[in-house]
Amino acid sequence: LQVDKGVDFAQYFCTYAFLYHQKEMLCDRVRMDAYFNAIFKNKHHFEGKTVLDVGTGSGILAIWSAQAGARKVYAVEATRMSEHARALIKANNLQHIIDVIEGSMEDVVLPEKVDVIISEWMGYFLLRESMFDSVIYARDHWLKPCGVMYPSHARMWVAPIRSKLGDQKMNDYEGAMDDWYNFVADTKTDYGVDMSVLTKPFSEEQRKYYLQTSLWNNLHPQQIIGTAAVIKDIDCLTATVEEILEVKSSFLSTINSENTRFCGYGGWFDVHFRGRNEDPAQLEIELTTAPSVSNGTHWGQQVFLLHPPIWVSEGDELKVSFFMKRSNENHRLMEVEFGCEINQPSGKLHQQPFTNKFYIE
Amino acid sequence: LQVDKGVDFAQYFCTYAFLYHQKEMLCDRVRMDAYFNAIFKNKHHFEGKTVLDVGTGSGILAIWSAQAGARKVYAVEATRMSEHARALIKANNLQHIIDVIEGSMEDVVLPEKVDVIISEWMGYFLLRESMFDSVIYARDHWLKPCGVMYPSHARMWVAPIRSKLGDQKMNDYEGAMDDWYNFVADTKTDYGVDMSVLTKPFSEEQRKYYLQTSLWNNLHPQQIIGTAAVIKDIDCLTATVEEILEVKSSFLSTINSENTRFCGYGGWFDVHFRGRNEDPAQLEIELTTAPSVSNGTHWGQQVFLLHPPIWVSEGDELKVSFFMKRSNENHRLMEVEFGCEINQPSGKLHQQPFTNKFYIE
Ligand SMILES: Nc1ncnc2c1ncn2[C@@H]1O[C@H](CSCC[C@H](N)C(=O)O)[C@@H](O)[C@H]1O
Ligand SMILES: Nc1ncnc2c1ncn2[C@@H]1O[C@H](CSCC[C@H](N)C(=O)O)[C@@H](O)[C@H]1O
Repeated sequence: LQVDKGVDFAQYFCTYAFLYHQKEMLCDRVRMDAYFNAIFKNKHHFEGKTVLDVGTGSGILAIWSAQAGARKVYAVEATRMSEHARALIKANNLQHIIDVIEGSMEDVVLPEKVDVIISEWMGYFLLRESMFDSVIYARDHWLKPCGVMYPSHARMWVAPIRSKLGDQKMNDYEGAMDDWYNFVADTKTDYGVDMSVLTKPFSEEQRKYYLQTSLWNNLHPQQIIGTAAVIKDIDCLTATVEEILEVKSSFLSTINSENTRFCGYGGWFDVHFRGRNEDPAQLEIELTTAPSVSNGTHWGQQVFLLHPPIWVSEGDELKVSFFMKRSNENHRLMEVEFGCEINQPSGKLHQQPFTNKFYIE
Repeated sequence: LQVDKGVDFAQYFCTYAFLYHQKEMLCDRVRMDAYFNAIFKNKHHFEGKTVLDVGTGSGILAIWSAQAGARKVYAVEATRMSEHARALIKANNLQHIIDVIEGSMEDVVLPEKVDVIISEWMGYFLLRESMFDSVIYARDHWLKPCGVMYPSHARMWVAPIRSKLGDQKMNDYEGAMDDWYNFVADTKTDYGVDMSVLTKPFSEEQRKYYLQTSLWNNLHPQQIIGTAAVIKDIDCLTATVEEILEVKSSFLSTINSENTRFCGYGGWFDVHFRGRNEDPAQLEIELTTAPSVSNGTHWGQQVFLLHPPIWVSEGDELKVSFFMKRSNENHRLMEVEFGCEINQPSGKLHQQPFTNKFYIE
């Protein structure tokens, strides 16, 4: 993993230096309630303990940890947001408990090992941003042998969906190509240059952009048309970077809506706060980003669309293979491949197996 | 000028690697016509000559130069767009004339000096992107003593304007602050943390974003409410980087609309193709990005808004000072300061002199 720190800072960390962006996370009630309850319903994990908050941002999790009774909290933040965190901590009279340290987790030296590591490291579809790497690093270097991870577990989910977004995107793509053909004709007539050799690369660029890039969406539960499957299960106490570099899985999903269009896949995640076997949570808390009518999160779901959609019926069985790896150009972005075979007990014509490649940008 | 090349590539060059972005420039008819005519109405500058195209992008200017009779064209492009340029050049049967070289202008070695340097290096308000630095570098290293620059001259313009964008942006800002106050109240009640210490930095961040960032706009000529002034005049043959690092100017502008709101400043540029004194153009061509009903460009104008606007009358005289420098964080972005003193011969109360700071992002 060779990463240019300057580039990483310019591309990734920059947004986190804005209060506006931190506020978006602080206004996500599902997220806030989960961490708040995880901490305050499990005070025994915090009282008199030392805590490390990996990526403290505004400082919120460090503050709650201190309010729940921590003896000492180390709040590490890579960006200048650390200054705002420091001000906030002072204004809430916790400066004697919380040390804010500006720096990358990977570069920081703490004066001691800690009892608890807390972090809100989850990106879209869990692993986008690859920030869990930094949590693993923190754990391996700074967590005491019997320490606890907050959250302790994480899972990735996939389900077949219906959605009209695919039609929209296909329209956008076709509109862009219509424009292109006019442009090629005009450029030849008016400026004497034949651009047609670029039609193929342009259409590939546009296909990638409109059709192969996964979308943020707040799915309605009714848009899930088949059984959802866990494609990855992570124990935050033991997971290695090796283990999350790639995610590979295959699963069966049974269509449970009558005569509907299979328009693509929806992906989301949940995390759990269970403490650790020897030192379990008093109350286990779950933070889920599954499709929900009233408990949506800022993560929404990632949607991977098929072009065109495929008609399916209740009882049809999808055999889906999933593969995700990091993008070569940017280790915080992902490339995903779905394979699918449809088994229609209804006896209708069997669809050929097909695969689709997507980019999580 | 210390620049991290990796960061610069990630932040600046990346967009130019998309055909979609090149196409936007290729669809700008004012831009295209100007370069097309500059070349084909001045074939004597190209016939049998060697040409360097700094930042060839799709290759269009290199192709026209070759079609106008150049003996050899070196087409330098920093991004992977160079591959598309190469394909386009081949498809137009000019591969024996044009050498496409992928690399930064600053790193490239040419086999010979050239008679002409052509480049479309202009960013918003002329100097955003700071690409002219690379053209200066190319000129100092690769232009023959009697060589010609295409374009040969460039000018920056400013005029007082009226616009309703300021009201919109002020509304957006106030909306963001209303949200913030609700957020602070809720976070205190629901999560026991007092965020009010962040109100000031948040409002500064939002002011910067909504009120102090210049905007792209396609101004109608009627929105210009006073005489426009040239604030910078560049001779591309002799200009130095020193000379464009900062732009400082002051000018008078007389309001020429009756009873109107002075809402801010509009900034634009023009460039000219005049050849050089000893070897002038046969037909001088101008490319202007001034406000225009039917000849708008993709550059539009940059708009710098006052909050609140000021009522002015015909005959009022503005004494404006202008200062622009590069942003410390990113040498391709700019910081601008306007000072203004209003002289109202009408005898109404004189406005106090005032200054406003802006960011060109
Ligand atoms: N390796 C690393 N070292 C330090 N900070 C990091 C980091 N990787 C990500 N971060 C920071 O982690 C934060 C993640 S967002 C979560 C912020 C805060 N804990 C909250 O729950 O509201 C960002 O502010 C980001 O800048
Ligand atoms: N220092 C540098 N070296 C090489 N290419 C550069 C450069 N600075 C900018 N560029 C390239 O210059 C181009 C400017 S846009 C203009 C493209 C083309 N000449 C046209 O007129 O349509 C971009 O493709 C950008 O990648």
